[in-house]
Amino acid sequence: MSHHHHHHEHCDEPSAHTLTLFTPAGVLTKAAPLRLAAKRLAAMGFHVHIDEAALVRHQRFGGDDETRLSALHRVAAQAPGIALATRGGYGLTRLLDRIDWKLIAKSVDLGTHWVGYSDMTALQLGLLGRTGRRSWAGPLACGDFGDEMLDEVTSDCFAEAMSGALEAVGFRTEAGFDGFEAKGTLWGGNLCVLNSMLGTRHWPKVKGGILFLEDVNEHPYRIERNLLQLHQAGVLDAQKAIVLGAFTEFKKSPLDRGYSLKAAIAYLRSVTKTPILTGLPFGHVPTKVTLPVGAKVTLLVQARDVLIGW
Amino acid sequence: MSHHHHHHEHCDEPSAHTLTLFTPAGVLTKAAPLRLAAKRLAAMGFHVHIDEAALVRHQRFGGDDETRLSALHRVAAQAPGIALATRGGYGLTRLLDRIDWKLIAKSVDLGTHWVGYSDMTALQLGLLGRTGRRSWAGPLACGDFGDEMLDEVTSDCFAEAMSGALEAVGFRTEAGFDGFEAKGTLWGGNLCVLNSMLGTRHWPKVKGGILFLEDVNEHPYRIERNLLQLHQAGVLDAQKAIVLGAFTEFKKSPLDRGYSLKAAIAYLRSVTKTPILTGLPFGHVPTKVTLPVGAKVTLLVQARDVLIGW
Repeated sequence: MSHHHHHHEHCDEPSAHTLTLFTPAGVLTKAAPLRLAAKRLAAMGFHVHIDEAALVRHQRFGGDDETRLSALHRVAAQAPGIALATRGGYGLTRLLDRIDWKLIAKSVDLGTHWVGYSDMTALQLGLLGRTGRRSWAGPLACGDFGDEMLDEVTSDCFAEAMSGALEAVGFRTEAGFDGFEAKGTLWGGNLCVLNSMLGTRHWPKVKGGILFLEDVNEHPYRIERNLLQLHQAGVLDAQKAIVLGAFTEFKKSPLDRGYSLKAAIAYLRSVTKTPILTGLPFGHVPTKVTLPVGAKVTLLVQARDVLIGW
Repeated sequence: MSHHHHHHEHCDEPSAHTLTLFTPAGVLTKAAPLRLAAKRLAAMGFHVHIDEAALVRHQRFGGDDETRLSALHRVAAQAPGIALATRGGYGLTRLLDRIDWKLIAKSVDLGTHWVGYSDMTALQLGLLGRTGRRSWAGPLACGDFGDEMLDEVTSDCFAEAMSGALEAVGFRTEAGFDGFEAKGTLWGGNLCVLNSMLGTRHWPKVKGGILFLEDVNEHPYRIERNLLQLHQAGVLDAQKAIVLGAFTEFKKSPLDRGYSLKAAIAYLRSVTKTPILTGLPFGHVPTKVTLPVGAKVTLLVQARDVLIGW
């Protein structure tokens, strides 16, 4: 993977950024990863603030719905440079009907970069669907910055994206797409979370977009079933490109008999006319890029090198 | 669980029924359960025919898409009294865009009872959505009739439903619904399969219905997320009742911290105005009733006894 960036003469440096860590979904059962993440991010030059409810616990959630909704609204009202979720899990779809989208949109207009992945997909797609505002698909505080083995590419890419220096990401894909070019709105995230918003008023109706997807713990037949639903709902054919990130940690079954993620992708390529590219360094893996959700991007392929620029 | 039936003077006896076993989705890795099912069903008086492609294998599927689609159309053209799927798995949503719905509808008009559950939900809901025709949520050949431990209630209920003798099923629910009464179209099946059709043209837009659901291997947060999607899509509030069957074989997580299926149901009851009843003997469990999908039914609760009649 390669980064492509361009430093503006007077752009804000990361040190100018206030960064708030908040918990919108799953519970943090330990405080240590949060403290390590805060320390690491501070060392990177961010002015780190930990939201007062970041460590609240309610069942499997980081506080009950009221607590997490209040945290989301509190962070939006403070409008830090960066609002970085502590972790994913499950919990944001519970809040979608009650989120004050105008408040979140206002924070974006004031400069807040909302960052995360996995369950954060629900906030990012809701924000796009309900307000057309951008957010950032990128690392999570505890899983990435709170991990002893923080990946340097993940960290650097995040810092450059937040400072505005990052203007493109590059990666290698399979052969067969040389010369392919597409322009459109970049959107997507976690496949299961994205699918769980289909048919609701929070769904962003993106046409001619570039849809990126990742997932974890999902058997290829479930990945295929979800993508097939997107196809049958007219979503895949309406995009200019589908870009697959990492699909990890699933268990094969003795029933598979040769069926695999590769077979699922081959099948999906046979049903949709939209090119499906693989290889995006994004998902439940240490090395992940930070991408602008809702931004107009250009995707270019030269030989096996893909560049997504904004 | 109790059965309520009424014998018509001149109704068809089960012995008058031709019954075809066919494979629409997952592969049969062994022939023995199919043979046992055929033997058992023959002993019950059915004239059993095994479709020629029932044991074809392609990856995790019972034949490739062409093979399974042809089997489905072949069975429909033969219009047996009963078309009983051998097993579920995954595979029917792959066929939805290509099924000749008129042909399936014609078989129903000629008297074919299409029976199964789990992945068969896709066929049943597609049939209802695309043609308004009825089918039957009930056992599968291999998992039920091909199991050494065939449940008598499952077997008897299936036979009575097929003969036309069965006019209602009864079961016990939780306290708190005494006197509740609802009339509407009975529909539903496997929650994941049902959700995977949302937003597609195969989705049956049932209003004022009685929606029954079951699932297997799904953690309560995933059951909740799927039901929450149905809520956010306006589906739950548009029904007169939700009836939950068995949700089985999921693994608890150390992250749950008191979150459970019960907690998920309590949460869903707080978001939808539609009553959510539990206790339907249906799902990935040995004891399951056979229910008419797409039929107008009456649901009555007396104390804790629920009766669904058609």
